[in-house]
Amino acid sequence: MRQNRSMAEELWRPSLDLALHRNRQSPQVRFVHLATLRESGRPAVRTLVFRGFLGETHQLTFATDGRSVKTAELEQSPWAEACWYFHLTREQFRFTGTVSSVAAATPDRAPREARIDVWREMSNESRQTYTWPDPGRPRVPLASFPTLSPDPLEPLPHFCLLVLEIRDVEHLELQGNPQHRWKYSKDAHGRWSGVEINP
Amino acid sequence: MRQNRSMAEELWRPSLDLALHRNRQSPQVRFVHLATLRESGRPAVRTLVFRGFLGETHQLTFATDGRSVKTAELEQSPWAEACWYFHLTREQFRFTGTVSSVAAATPDRAPREARIDVWREMSNESRQTYTWPDPGRPRVPLASFPTLSPDPLEPLPHFCLLVLEIRDVEHLELQGNPQHRWKYSKDAHGRWSGVEINP
Repeated sequence: MRQNRSMAEELWRPSLDLALHRNRQSPQVRFVHLATLRESGRPAVRTLVFRGFLGETHQLTFATDGRSVKTAELEQSPWAEACWYFHLTREQFRFTGTVSSVAAATPDRAPREARIDVWREMSNESRQTYTWPDPGRPRVPLASFPTLSPDPLEPLPHFCLLVLEIRDVEHLELQGNPQHRWKYSKDAHGRWSGVEINP
Repeated sequence: MRQNRSMAEELWRPSLDLALHRNRQSPQVRFVHLATLRESGRPAVRTLVFRGFLGETHQLTFATDGRSVKTAELEQSPWAEACWYFHLTREQFRFTGTVSSVAAATPDRAPREARIDVWREMSNESRQTYTWPDPGRPRVPLASFPTLSPDPLEPLPHFCLLVLEIRDVEHLELQGNPQHRWKYSKDAHGRWSGVEINP
């Protein structure tokens, strides 16, 4: 998809890449907070680990359990916002868009393969969590938690990849007096534009 | 309000106090991600600094600019969720509830005084941001940003305190194999109950 990128889109992505680079010593550099809607229409938010961009796109990926409440909620309402705070450089990105859930049967090849790649790159400790009994249900006895590791090459069926397609971006730099804040939006034709706004 | 606390309510608050203590060396210990609803009903989330509990209650307070979009959005829909991740101990709290906005004219004395206390305890750098031109509007020239510091004793009129009244809590401890996760809820009579759930 590289050829479809507009120049303006390049405005925020290099800033994000730079933030990732400058904060690479921070153990929390890949922690993102994803807000979604509950079935009640009320907001929910949790910490997720950024699992990379989807191929050559600017879409953000995260791993999740298909049995989790958020997966069901995202089926009902795909709107989401990701807040990514980089504390070493004191800057915040907010990414607004829609999330799709990728499973083994997803028709599109690129996300389907990305799901397998993410599974293979995850730590064994992370993969193990997908063998546990239904998340969110009343706690079952310890004996119900498998101790065997799952296949590191083949994702478990309920392992899903969440893909955030971004429509709006807000970038806030807290360093500087006054601070700096930019807003970027993608129009119906996929063209990006950006403007600096008051912090 | 100390006498109104139930024993069960004490289950999650000591865990939070312990997390604050154990993570006190972390510069990000007071960073919380607050999710709210936009006017469109879509979710929004941003990083805020925890400004303490409201008096003897378990309500969380944050500072905000009354001219910000989130203040208007919270007037329309007070539902919110705060996600608080403690990275040294690898644990996450999610607090679901409603947010009220406290200004100079708020009738209740306790929140009105808390608003003044928070203003006085804030850094001069933080107070200064409230002198800046309308946040979120197109960037104005540098000359429009006042350089004089505001009165450290008397909050500017648009300085607001956000107060999150918590109804549900989820606490996840990532350390341990398997992990631990608890859910606490407050009933209509203000009584709390808790249960351990699958991670």
